[in-house]
Amino acid sequence: MKIDLNSDMGEGFGPYQIADDAALMGLVSSANVACGYHAGDPVIMDRTIRLAKEHGVDLGAHVSYPDLMGFGRRRIDMALPELEAHVLYQLGALSALATRANHKITHMNPHGALGNLASSDPDTAEALVRATRAFDPEIAFLVLPGSALDVAALAAGSRTVKLFLADRAYTPDGQLAPRAQPGAVIHEPDAVLARVLKVIETATIEAIDGTTIDMPVRSILIHSDTAGAVKLAQMLRDGIALAGGTITPLSQDS
Amino acid sequence: MKIDLNSDMGEGFGPYQIADDAALMGLVSSANVACGYHAGDPVIMDRTIRLAKEHGVDLGAHVSYPDLMGFGRRRIDMALPELEAHVLYQLGALSALATRANHKITHMNPHGALGNLASSDPDTAEALVRATRAFDPEIAFLVLPGSALDVAALAAGSRTVKLFLADRAYTPDGQLAPRAQPGAVIHEPDAVLARVLKVIETATIEAIDGTTIDMPVRSILIHSDTAGAVKLAQMLRDGIALAGGTITPLSQDS
Amino acid sequence: MKIDLNSDMGEGFGPYQIADDAALMGLVSSANVACGYHAGDPVIMDRTIRLAKEHGVDLGAHVSYPDLMGFGRRRIDMALPELEAHVLYQLGALSALATRANHKITHMNPHGALGNLASSDPDTAEALVRATRAFDPEIAFLVLPGSALDVAALAAGSRTVKLFLADRAYTPDGQLAPRAQPGAVIHEPDAVLARVLKVIETATIEAIDGTTIDMPVRSILIHSDTAGAVKLAQMLRDGIALAGGTITPLSQDS
Amino acid sequence: MKIDLNSDMGEGFGPYQIADDAALMGLVSSANVACGYHAGDPVIMDRTIRLAKEHGVDLGAHVSYPDLMGFGRRRIDMALPELEAHVLYQLGALSALATRANHKITHMNPHGALGNLASSDPDTAEALVRATRAFDPEIAFLVLPGSALDVAALAAGSRTVKLFLADRAYTPDGQLAPRAQPGAVIHEPDAVLARVLKVIETATIEAIDGTTIDMPVRSILIHSDTAGAVKLAQMLRDGIALAGGTITPLSQDS
Repeated sequence: MKIDLNSDMGEGFGPYQIADDAALMGLVSSANVACGYHAGDPVIMDRTIRLAKEHGVDLGAHVSYPDLMGFGRRRIDMALPELEAHVLYQLGALSALATRANHKITHMNPHGALGNLASSDPDTAEALVRATRAFDPEIAFLVLPGSALDVAALAAGSRTVKLFLADRAYTPDGQLAPRAQPGAVIHEPDAVLARVLKVIETATIEAIDGTTIDMPVRSILIHSDTAGAVKLAQMLRDGIALAGGTITPLSQDS
Repeated sequence: MKIDLNSDMGEGFGPYQIADDAALMGLVSSANVACGYHAGDPVIMDRTIRLAKEHGVDLGAHVSYPDLMGFGRRRIDMALPELEAHVLYQLGALSALATRANHKITHMNPHGALGNLASSDPDTAEALVRATRAFDPEIAFLVLPGSALDVAALAAGSRTVKLFLADRAYTPDGQLAPRAQPGAVIHEPDAVLARVLKVIETATIEAIDGTTIDMPVRSILIHSDTAGAVKLAQMLRDGIALAGGTITPLSQDS
Repeated sequence: MKIDLNSDMGEGFGPYQIADDAALMGLVSSANVACGYHAGDPVIMDRTIRLAKEHGVDLGAHVSYPDLMGFGRRRIDMALPELEAHVLYQLGALSALATRANHKITHMNPHGALGNLASSDPDTAEALVRATRAFDPEIAFLVLPGSALDVAALAAGSRTVKLFLADRAYTPDGQLAPRAQPGAVIHEPDAVLARVLKVIETATIEAIDGTTIDMPVRSILIHSDTAGAVKLAQMLRDGIALAGGTITPLSQDS
Repeated sequence: MKIDLNSDMGEGFGPYQIADDAALMGLVSSANVACGYHAGDPVIMDRTIRLAKEHGVDLGAHVSYPDLMGFGRRRIDMALPELEAHVLYQLGALSALATRANHKITHMNPHGALGNLASSDPDTAEALVRATRAFDPEIAFLVLPGSALDVAALAAGSRTVKLFLADRAYTPDGQLAPRAQPGAVIHEPDAVLARVLKVIETATIEAIDGTTIDMPVRSILIHSDTAGAVKLAQMLRDGIALAGGTITPLSQDS
């Protein structure tokens, strides 16, 4: 069974760092790289792309609203054509640096407030899909199963890759439980590992109310900016191997 | 004789406009489009690219230092690898929007302080050439004849297109006379036209000290942000036609 | 009768201009100056403050969300303490430049999306009032009559100055008719002048549905960025004088 | 003997942190707070000011060129009037937040490339002094002894406070040895402490060539962003006390 370990990367800016990308890159199989909007600058993007290439890690575009101060967590109202232009700008910028490093964008994944909106709002999801397909129809979408982005990308003929957030609780209808809800974020590494193994072994997970829900999954997200991210990544690698899984980039599916 | 009429375009930002791009685009044959660094944003870039495509106008990347407040006129010290990453970022961003509009980047031309440095400093010129060729070796360089960028691009095997600044005086060694020098900027449209015709007919021009210098030229720059730019562009079009020249984008040479 | 003619000023950025501030400054009696968030930079702020001082024009802080690309027209979600910090930052920056020019901030007026929210949302209005009063409790608020900002400022013990938007239609309950509604924007200068005279003479105006509503007013806003703004300002000055009004800055009331 | 322990603070941005300000604030006696140009945003500025107020720590304005991506380490060419406007903008912004917290700016200290230029270039130094004095002539300047800023501030009638960089070697003429020179940065905490004690006890220090130079000092800088900064600050506090010095904010001198 192929499992992709995935993490957001390159989320520093200028002198600022927010995660230990160099250590994590040796453990994951795909990376979502910030494109200068919520984080990242051309130098950091270049360094992150080269790290990914060296480690055989898939390269994703982690596109965002232009909001460095708010780290892309604030919604910015934009007409859809404006949003599409911003998505193309980011895809192109990342792709040019990737081209020089003999790497290429295999997937995309919207960040923060844009990611939330693309999961819930079909119009936004369709705009992201249109812009991405106009750039390169081979780019896959890393999505929450059943989200608006999952639906829109499949409808357009794109590939979607189902993502499981190992440290987040889910509602009975398969959505992420809001962070404000008690128990919404799972901090204990052993609990996170247990959930990952459960999902791999049964394609189901226990929702926050105790019911069992379907959770088909191809990729598991590790938040790079939490304390212990590197150690957790190592635990998940080992655990997945013990459970018979193989860490495989999402692009290697034949 | 093929003559390219060339202008900087898309130099607004958000609600700001600085030139009448829509009118000029019908008169020029190639446009250098700002890439969001000294001016331009994704929406304006997209609009400008589409205008260029509609009018059969060649698309150039007008790359810059990241300096919106200073309109790219201030030098920003950067290590060469950092500069290269910024150039690739801009080329990629513009190219992605061009791809969607079925257009493509045919040339590049550094703006403002970066342009000045690339004309005089071989290291900077070579960095620009390296970054551009890593993205697409077919991209031509719009250069002042004999400048460091002209030399570096030719040495790397790229095509260069000689640019004549119709409203600027030249020193006897073929450089632009500094703006501060009396007579350095030629404001009178008839004088500008006369200089253009002289250059087309004789491939020479009178320098600011009265000596005659060689001025081989394939492209003539019209500053889009000066008053009367549209009228001047029309005058030059008409004058060039009367002199037997043909307005032709710089990419149509073979 | 004292009438203040008021306009938004200093809304350029770097090389960009959006209005003819130099001409307008000779015609208005108070100016709302952009503070570097939706527009304006320190050089433009300084120039605008000096112009205001020279002409005896009152200085207002035209605070905004930090959104240069969107010209402050897009709402940015912020916690109230964050918003207060941003308001203080802008007030202080403008005030420091004013201090050097022997001028001072007499009033404040939120711009764009922040202005809309402060008119309708009591929490936002109260945050603006708290931040402003912490900086200087003498600063007046330029408000739409009866808006949330009017209410919040009065409740805190601040002075409010009622603003009439001469080129906008009103709903029967005294709010601005949405721009999208037919007839919401009044373009004809004679009609604008007639409305101003009506308001001065009767303290009422005809709403968009034909009913007559109260419109007590001390200040009349001229949009600086519309074509003909300078000419309209001259018309209003002349018309107000003929009607027996006196153009007086809003700070000169006692 | 009064010794001020001084550190740069509030140098994060949005979600980014670069130092443990909360821990350091309990150990220093004065803080230079970033003003949103090379680092800092209104929320971080506010938090840092409040921390300083709580701990009885003096508040300084750590002004910079507008260069977040380069952390203010790159020189940006500006005409002197433009620079003055930027300095006033930053002083005012910081001061407004300080006013609300019942704190006030006691000193200023230019950061990075601006600091280097103000130390060596009299015109830049005088521009900083003019802008600062126009805002508040009571503000002291934290300077390298004998630097252009020291000279300019004294000439204008302002107070200067001599700063010793405990972890940097000096040339025989009292300047900082360039970072690129071997031995220019002193990493060993015991060596740093020994230098501080030497300076306190003798008002001299050994230059990088072994000669002894005068080093009158009232304030000692601890770089907040180096590993072990908190521990070093504690060591210096203890060492200074043992040597008979008293940690005292620079404003408490009379």
